[in-house]
Amino acid sequence: MHVGIVTQTYQAKIYVTLRPSVLDPAGTAVQTGFKQLGYDNVGPIRIGKYIELTVSADDEDAASQQVDRMCDQLLANPVIENYRFDLQLAPTAGAAK
Amino acid sequence: MHVGIVTQTYQAKIYVTLRPSVLDPAGTAVQTGFKQLGYDNVGPIRIGKYIELTVSADDEDAASQQVDRMCDQLLANPVIENYRFDLQLAPTAGAAK
Repeated sequence: MHVGIVTQTYQAKIYVTLRPSVLDPAGTAVQTGFKQLGYDNVGPIRIGKYIELTVSADDEDAASQQVDRMCDQLLANPVIENYRFDLQLAPTAGAAK
Repeated sequence: MHVGIVTQTYQAKIYVTLRPSVLDPAGTAVQTGFKQLGYDNVGPIRIGKYIELTVSADDEDAASQQVDRMCDQLLANPVIENYRFDLQLAPTAGAAK
Protein backbone atom coordinates (compact mmCIF):
# COMPACT_ATOMS: atom_id res chain seq x y z
CA MET A 1 0.00 0.00 0.00
CA HIS A 2 1.29 3.41 -0.89
CA VAL A 3 1.02 6.20 1.61
CA GLY A 4 2.07 9.62 0.40
CA ILE A 5 1.93 11.94 3.39
CA VAL A 6 1.38 10.93 6.98
CA THR A 7 -1.12 13.21 8.64
CA GLN A 8 -0.30 14.11 12.20
CA THR A 9 -2.33 15.46 15.06
CA TYR A 10 -1.24 18.70 16.65
CA GLN A 11 -2.48 20.16 19.88
CA ALA A 12 -2.97 23.92 19.92
CA LYS A 13 -3.08 25.97 23.12
CA ILE A 14 -4.65 29.29 22.26
CA TYR A 15 -4.63 32.40 24.42
CA VAL A 16 -7.15 35.10 23.57
CA THR A 17 -6.68 38.36 25.44
CA LEU A 18 -8.35 41.75 25.31
CA ARG A 19 -6.25 44.43 23.65
CA PRO A 20 -4.60 46.63 26.27
CA SER A 21 -6.66 49.64 25.19
CA VAL A 22 -9.96 47.82 25.79
CA LEU A 23 -11.59 48.06 29.20
CA ASP A 24 -12.12 44.77 31.06
CA PRO A 25 -15.17 45.15 33.33
CA ALA A 26 -15.03 41.51 34.40
CA GLY A 27 -11.42 41.91 35.47
CA THR A 28 -12.28 45.04 37.40
CA ALA A 29 -15.11 43.20 39.16
CA VAL A 30 -12.77 40.40 40.17
CA GLN A 31 -10.25 42.92 41.44
CA THR A 32 -12.95 44.51 43.58
CA GLY A 33 -13.86 41.05 44.83
CA PHE A 34 -10.29 40.43 45.93
CA LYS A 35 -10.21 43.77 47.76
CA GLN A 36 -13.36 42.74 49.64
CA LEU A 37 -11.71 39.42 50.52
CA GLY A 38 -8.85 41.35 52.07
CA TYR A 39 -6.23 41.14 49.33
CA ASP A 40 -4.91 44.68 49.08
CA ASN A 41 -1.78 43.85 47.12
CA VAL A 42 -3.40 42.72 43.89
CA GLY A 43 -2.91 44.82 40.75
CA PRO A 44 -5.06 45.11 37.65
CA ILE A 45 -6.61 41.86 36.44
CA ARG A 46 -7.26 40.96 32.80
CA ILE A 47 -9.45 37.99 31.94
CA GLY A 48 -9.10 36.20 28.64
CA LYS A 49 -9.85 32.84 27.11
CA TYR A 50 -7.70 29.74 27.04
CA ILE A 51 -8.66 27.25 24.35
CA GLU A 52 -7.30 23.76 23.76
CA LEU A 53 -8.01 21.91 20.53
CA THR A 54 -6.43 19.43 18.15
CA VAL A 55 -6.07 19.63 14.38
CA SER A 56 -4.85 17.03 11.93
CA ALA A 57 -2.41 18.37 9.38
CA ASP A 58 0.44 17.27 7.15
CA ASP A 59 3.02 19.34 9.00
CA GLU A 60 3.38 21.99 11.65
CA ASP A 61 3.31 24.85 9.15
CA ALA A 62 -0.04 23.75 7.78
CA ALA A 63 -1.43 23.30 11.29
CA SER A 64 -0.16 26.73 12.32
CA GLN A 65 -1.73 28.45 9.32
CA GLN A 66 -5.03 26.73 9.93
CA VAL A 67 -5.16 27.60 13.63
CA ASP A 68 -4.34 31.19 12.73
CA ARG A 69 -7.32 31.30 10.35
CA MET A 70 -9.56 29.62 12.92
CA CYS A 71 -8.66 32.27 15.51
CA ASP A 72 -9.41 35.06 13.06
CA GLN A 73 -12.70 33.55 11.95
CA LEU A 74 -14.25 32.27 15.14
CA LEU A 75 -12.16 32.15 18.30
CA ALA A 76 -11.14 35.78 18.67
CA ASN A 77 -12.68 39.12 17.80
CA PRO A 78 -9.75 40.88 16.11
CA VAL A 79 -11.31 44.27 16.74
CA ILE A 80 -10.89 44.04 20.51
CA GLU A 81 -8.82 40.91 21.11
CA ASN A 82 -5.33 39.62 20.46
CA TYR A 83 -4.45 35.97 20.25
CA ARG A 84 -1.40 33.78 20.28
CA PHE A 85 -0.98 30.03 20.32
CA ASP A 86 1.48 27.23 20.90
CA LEU A 87 1.47 24.10 18.77
CA GLN A 88 2.85 20.70 19.66
CA LEU A 89 2.44 17.16 18.47
CA ALA A 90 -0.45 15.60 20.33
CA PRO A 91 0.47 12.77 22.73
CA THR A 92 -1.22 10.30 20.39
CA ALA A 93 0.65 11.72 17.42
CA GLY A 94 0.35 10.01 14.09
CA ALA A 95 -3.15 8.76 14.79
CA ALA A 96 -4.78 10.69 11.99
CA LYS A 97 -8.53 10.54 12.10
CA MET B 1 14.45 55.30 57.16
CA HIS B 2 14.74 51.61 57.78
CA VAL B 3 13.41 49.20 55.17
CA GLY B 4 13.43 45.56 56.19
CA ILE B 5 12.17 43.57 53.24
CA VAL B 6 11.83 44.80 49.69
CA THR B 7 8.42 43.91 48.31
CA GLN B 8 8.42 42.81 44.72
CA THR B 9 5.74 42.64 42.11
CA TYR B 10 5.03 39.28 40.50
CA GLN B 11 2.97 38.65 37.42
CA ALA B 12 0.79 35.54 37.52
CA LYS B 13 -0.55 33.85 34.40
CA ILE B 14 -3.40 31.63 35.47
CA TYR B 15 -5.05 28.92 33.40
CA VAL B 16 -8.44 27.69 34.55
CA THR B 17 -9.73 24.63 32.71
CA LEU B 18 -12.76 22.42 33.08
CA ARG B 19 -12.02 19.04 34.61
CA PRO B 20 -11.82 16.38 31.90
CA SER B 21 -14.94 14.64 33.23
CA VAL B 22 -17.05 17.80 32.91
CA LEU B 23 -18.93 18.43 29.66
CA ASP B 24 -18.03 21.63 27.80
CA PRO B 25 -21.11 22.77 25.83
CA ALA B 26 -19.39 25.97 24.66
CA GLY B 27 -16.50 23.94 23.28
CA THR B 28 -18.90 21.62 21.49
CA ALA B 29 -20.69 24.61 19.97
CA VAL B 30 -17.42 26.02 18.69
CA GLN B 31 -16.49 22.63 17.24
CA THR B 32 -19.81 22.54 15.40
CA GLY B 33 -19.12 26.05 14.15
CA PHE B 34 -15.79 24.95 12.70
CA LYS B 35 -17.44 22.02 10.95
CA GLN B 36 -19.90 24.45 9.36
CA LEU B 37 -17.00 26.64 8.27
CA GLY B 38 -15.52 23.64 6.49
CA TYR B 39 -12.87 22.53 8.97
CA ASP B 40 -13.32 18.77 9.16
CA ASN B 41 -9.99 18.01 10.81
CA VAL B 42 -10.60 19.67 14.16
CA GLY B 43 -10.83 17.52 17.28
CA PRO B 44 -12.59 18.21 20.56
CA ILE B 45 -12.32 21.78 21.86
CA ARG B 46 -12.16 22.82 25.50
CA ILE B 47 -12.60 26.41 26.50
CA GLY B 48 -11.14 27.75 29.71
CA LYS B 49 -10.08 31.03 31.21
CA TYR B 50 -6.74 32.77 31.02
CA ILE B 51 -6.16 35.36 33.73
CA GLU B 52 -3.30 37.79 34.12
CA LEU B 53 -2.75 39.69 37.34
CA THR B 54 0.00 41.09 39.51
CA VAL B 55 0.59 40.67 43.23
CA SER B 56 3.09 42.35 45.50
CA ALA B 57 4.86 39.95 47.84
CA ASP B 58 8.09 39.55 49.77
CA ASP B 59 9.22 36.56 47.73
CA GLU B 60 8.05 34.11 45.12
CA ASP B 61 6.90 31.53 47.68
CA ALA B 62 4.59 34.04 49.34
CA ALA B 63 3.24 35.17 45.97
CA SER B 64 2.67 31.57 44.90
CA GLN B 65 0.77 30.71 48.07
CA GLN B 66 -1.40 33.79 47.74
CA VAL B 67 -2.25 33.17 44.09
CA ASP B 68 -3.13 29.58 44.99
CA ARG B 69 -5.58 30.82 47.64
CA MET B 70 -7.00 33.40 45.24
CA CYS B 71 -7.69 30.70 42.65
CA ASP B 72 -9.42 28.54 45.22
CA GLN B 73 -11.51 31.36 46.61
CA LEU B 74 -12.58 33.30 43.53
CA LEU B 75 -10.98 32.51 40.19
CA ALA B 76 -11.80 28.83 39.83
CA ASN B 77 -14.62 26.59 40.91
CA PRO B 78 -12.72 23.61 42.36
CA VAL B 79 -15.73 21.35 41.95
CA ILE B 80 -15.61 21.46 38.14
CA GLU B 81 -12.38 23.27 37.29
CA ASN B 82 -8.65 22.77 37.57
CA TYR B 83 -6.16 25.59 37.62
CA ARG B 84 -2.46 26.11 37.24
CA PHE B 85 -0.35 29.22 37.08
CA ASP B 86 3.08 30.57 36.21
CA LEU B 87 4.73 33.29 38.25
CA GLN B 88 7.42 35.67 37.16
CA LEU B 89 8.81 38.98 38.31
CA ALA B 90 6.81 41.75 36.69
CA PRO B 91 8.71 43.88 34.17
CA THR B 92 8.53 46.80 36.58
CA ALA B 93 9.79 44.61 39.42
CA GLY B 94 10.65 46.19 42.71
CA ALA B 95 8.10 48.96 42.37
CA ALA B 96 6.16 47.98 45.47
CA LYS B 97 2.91 49.81 45.82
